Amino acid sequence: MKLSDIATILSCDIDFKDIDIKRINNLKDAKNDEISFVISSKYIKDIKTTKASAIIISDALLEYVPDGCITLSVDNPEYSMAILSKYFAPPIEDDSLPPALVGEGSKISPKAEIANGAKIGKNCTILAHVYIGANTTIGDNTIIYPSVTIYRDCNIGSDCIIHSNTAIGSDGFGFATSAQGEHKKIYQNGNVIIEDDVEIGSNVSIDRAVFSSTLIKKGVRIDNLVQVAHNCEIGEYSVLVSQSGCSGSTKLGRNVVVGGQAAFTGHLEIAPFSTFAARSGVTKSIKKSGLTFAGFPAINHRQWLKLQVKIAKLLK
Amino acid sequence: MKLSDIATILSCDIDFKDIDIKRINNLKDAKNDEISFVISSKYIKDIKTTKASAIIISDALLEYVPDGCITLSVDNPEYSMAILSKYFAPPIEDDSLPPALVGEGSKISPKAEIANGAKIGKNCTILAHVYIGANTTIGDNTIIYPSVTIYRDCNIGSDCIIHSNTAIGSDGFGFATSAQGEHKKIYQNGNVIIEDDVEIGSNVSIDRAVFSSTLIKKGVRIDNLVQVAHNCEIGEYSVLVSQSGCSGSTKLGRNVVVGGQAAFTGHLEIAPFSTFAARSGVTKSIKKSGLTFAGFPAINHRQWLKLQVKIAKLLK
Amino acid sequence: MKLSDIATILSCDIDFKDIDIKRINNLKDAKNDEISFVISSKYIKDIKTTKASAIIISDALLEYVPDGCITLSVDNPEYSMAILSKYFAPPIEDDSLPPALVGEGSKISPKAEIANGAKIGKNCTILAHVYIGANTTIGDNTIIYPSVTIYRDCNIGSDCIIHSNTAIGSDGFGFATSAQGEHKKIYQNGNVIIEDDVEIGSNVSIDRAVFSSTLIKKGVRIDNLVQVAHNCEIGEYSVLVSQSGCSGSTKLGRNVVVGGQAAFTGHLEIAPFSTFAARSGVTKSIKKSGLTFAGFPAINHRQWLKLQVKIAKLLK
Repeated sequence: MKLSDIATILSCDIDFKDIDIKRINNLKDAKNDEISFVISSKYIKDIKTTKASAIIISDALLEYVPDGCITLSVDNPEYSMAILSKYFAPPIEDDSLPPALVGEGSKISPKAEIANGAKIGKNCTILAHVYIGANTTIGDNTIIYPSVTIYRDCNIGSDCIIHSNTAIGSDGFGFATSAQGEHKKIYQNGNVIIEDDVEIGSNVSIDRAVFSSTLIKKGVRIDNLVQVAHNCEIGEYSVLVSQSGCSGSTKLGRNVVVGGQAAFTGHLEIAPFSTFAARSGVTKSIKKSGLTFAGFPAINHRQWLKLQVKIAKLLK
Repeated sequence: MKLSDIATILSCDIDFKDIDIKRINNLKDAKNDEISFVISSKYIKDIKTTKASAIIISDALLEYVPDGCITLSVDNPEYSMAILSKYFAPPIEDDSLPPALVGEGSKISPKAEIANGAKIGKNCTILAHVYIGANTTIGDNTIIYPSVTIYRDCNIGSDCIIHSNTAIGSDGFGFATSAQGEHKKIYQNGNVIIEDDVEIGSNVSIDRAVFSSTLIKKGVRIDNLVQVAHNCEIGEYSVLVSQSGCSGSTKLGRNVVVGGQAAFTGHLEIAPFSTFAARSGVTKSIKKSGLTFAGFPAINHRQWLKLQVKIAKLLK
Repeated sequence: MKLSDIATILSCDIDFKDIDIKRINNLKDAKNDEISFVISSKYIKDIKTTKASAIIISDALLEYVPDGCITLSVDNPEYSMAILSKYFAPPIEDDSLPPALVGEGSKISPKAEIANGAKIGKNCTILAHVYIGANTTIGDNTIIYPSVTIYRDCNIGSDCIIHSNTAIGSDGFGFATSAQGEHKKIYQNGNVIIEDDVEIGSNVSIDRAVFSSTLIKKGVRIDNLVQVAHNCEIGEYSVLVSQSGCSGSTKLGRNVVVGGQAAFTGHLEIAPFSTFAARSGVTKSIKKSGLTFAGFPAINHRQWLKLQVKIAKLLK
C-alpha cells in the first residue's frame, strides 16, 4: 500500500516522498517497510528507536521521532490506526490459494471444511463440522474434535488434541474509541501458534494477536471454557484450569499452574513454576519463580490463608 | 388458541364467554388478545393496570383484577404459566415458510444451514457450519464466523461481526418449580435483537427473551465467553470483557464498561458511562452516571482500593 | 490385553503367570479382569480390599497388596497408568459398528453427523451441525440444537433439551506429570450419562469420566457456560446457573441450587437442598441439608451477610 494512500485515508498532508508500506506494527517490532503508531507518551522510548518507515503520531510527540521516519500527524493516533488496520486485513477466505494439502494417513470428515491454502500433516483426525482457515497449518497426529474452528494463518503443532467447540484465532478484543464514545475495530492481523503436544479442552477461546502471535508453547494443558486473549504467551507445560482467563499480552513462564476461575490482568510477566489457587485475581507481574498465590488481588498463599483467619475473626 | 382450551389444560372452570388468545405476556406488556399471569403479590400494581384479556392468578389476589379481565384461578400461577407456555411455542423449524432470501453479494458457505423464512442482507459473509433459524434476519455487510448458531426469529443488524461458536437466541433459563421440587420449562417465546455495528466474540451466549426481546444496542463490543441472559438490554457502545455476565432483565445504559469476570444480578438498571473493574459483582442498580466500581458486592472503586489497604492491615 | 504386554510397556519384570486384562480402573471399582494403580499412600485402605487382578504400585506400598493380586512395580504409578491408559482407549469412530439407528418420528438434519453405532430414540429433533458419537444413545423426544457435540459412548435420556455449541463427553482434564514437569495424558475411558428431562444451556462443557460415568440426574437444569468436570454427579432437579463450575468427582445431592459463577473444588459431597449464592466458592463437603451459603471460602449465608457489614466498617 502506498503511504500516500494511507495519508489520504487519514486526511493527512502528503509532504513526503512516497513509499510502499507492507504492514502496520507496534513501535518495537516494526521494520523498514512498515508503519507504526504512538498511542501515548508512555511509548516515547520506543519512538526514538523504532525502525518503522512511517509513524502515526500526535503533534505533541513529534519531537521524539527519529530522522528519516515519515510522520503522519493526527489527533487520535489509536483511532487512526484502527481505521487503517482494516486495509491490511487479509480476506477471510481466499479462493486463489491452492486447495488444502492433506498428509498421508490423515482422516478428514467430509463434513469438515478445510479452506484453500491450509496444510494438514500426517495421521491427523479431523472430525465433522471442524473449520480450518486459509493458510493454517496442522502438524502430524493431531486430533481435532467436532465444531472446532481454527481461523486463517494459525499454526497448530503435532500430537495436539483440541476438543469440541473451541475457537482458535478469533479476533482479539481490540478497538479504539472516539471522543464521542464510538468504537472502531482494530483488525487483528496476527495469528495463533500452538506448539507440539498441547491439549485444549472444549469451549475454549484463544484469540489471534493484533500483530505477531499469541503463543501456546509445548506441552501446555488447557481445560474447558478458558479465555486466552490476544498476544498472550503460555509457557511450556503450563496448566490452565477451567474458566480461568489471561488478559491481553500477559506471559506465563513454564509450568505455571492456574486454578479454576483464576485470572490475570493484561501485560503481566509471570515467573516459571508459579502456582495460583482457584479464583486468584493476579494484578501484578511475578519475578520470583516457584511460589504459590491466592486471593484477589493475589498475594502469597500462606498470607492469604492467614488473612482468611483474620477476616473470620471479624465476626466474633 | 381458545381460552376455553387453556382453562381445560390448566384444570380451571369455564365460567366465561370464550375468546381467542394470541400470546402469553407479562402484566405490563400484555395486550387485548393476550393472557397474563401473576407470580406474587409484588405485582399487584401491574394487575390493576393490565390490558390482558385474561389472567392466571391465585385466589388471594383476585380482588385486584380489573373489570372485564377474565380470571383463571390456580394454586401456582407460575407453574400453570409454564405448562401453558409450551402451547405458544413456535416449531423449531417450519418447512411451510418460504426458502431463505439472500441479498446481492452475500457469500454463504454451502456447509452453512439457513432455515426457511430467514433473510440475509447484502454483502454478508456466512461461513461453514453456521445456523440461521427460521424468520431470523441479518442486515448488510455482516460477517458470521463458523459454528455460530442464531435461533429463529432473531434480528441481527448491519456491519456486525459474530465470532465462532457463539449462540444467539438460545432459550433463557426459565422454569417454574413445583412443591415437590420438579422444574417445568417456561418456553422462551421472545427473541434477540442485535443492532448495527456490534461485534461479538467467540463462545458467547445471548439468550432469547421469555417475552419481547433481549436487546444489544448499536456499537456494543462483547468479548469471548460472555453470558447475556434473557431480557437484558445492553446500551449503545457498551463493552463487556471476557467471562463477564448479565443476569436476566438487567439493563445497562450506553457506554457502560464491564471488566473481565464481572457480573450483574438480575433486574438491575445501570446508569450510562458506568465502569466496573474486573470481577466486580454488582447487586444494586446504579442511578448516577460516570462512576467507577469494584468488588463484590460492588462499591465505589476508590472506596474499594481503600478497603483493600484496610484488609491488608489485618495481617499486621 | 495381556498383562505381559502391559509389563513390557511399563518396563516391568514379567515374573507372573500371564492373564488377560480388560480395563484399567480405580482401586475401589476394579473387578477381577482389571488392572488398577496406587497414586499415593492415601489409598492404602483401598489397596487392601481391591478386587483388581493386577496393580501398578511403588515399592513402598507393596506390603499392602492382597494375596493373589499381581504387582507391577514402578517409580511413578500415576505416570505409568497414564502411559497405559492410551492402550485401553477405544477409537474415536469405528466404521465396523453398524450404521446409526433412528427411531420413528425423529427428524435428523442431513447436516448432522451421527456416527456408526449410535442410537436415536423416537420423535427426536437433531439439528444441523450436531455430532453424535459412536455407541451414544439418545432417548425419545429429545431436542438437540445446532453444533452440539456428544462424544462416543454417552447416554442421553428422554425429553431432554440441549442448546447450541455445548460439548458433552469431552475428555476430563487428567494427566500425570513427570519429575521433569512434562504431562502425560490420562485417557478418559468413561462416559457421560444424562437422565430424562434435563435441559442444558449453550456453550456448556460436561466432561466424560476417567473411569465409570459423569452423571447428570433426572430433571436437572444447567444454564449457559457451565463447567461439569469428570466424574461429577449432579443430583435430581439441581440447578446450575450460568458460568458456575464443578471440579472433578464432586457430587451434588438433589435440588441443590448453584448461583452464577459459583464453583466447587473437587471430591466434595454436597447435601440435598443446599443453596449457594452467586460466586460462592465451595471448598468443603456439606452434610446438613437445606442450608444456604455464600462467599469464598463459602460460609453460612447469614454469617456472610454479617461479615460484609463488618468488612464495610473497616472503612470507618
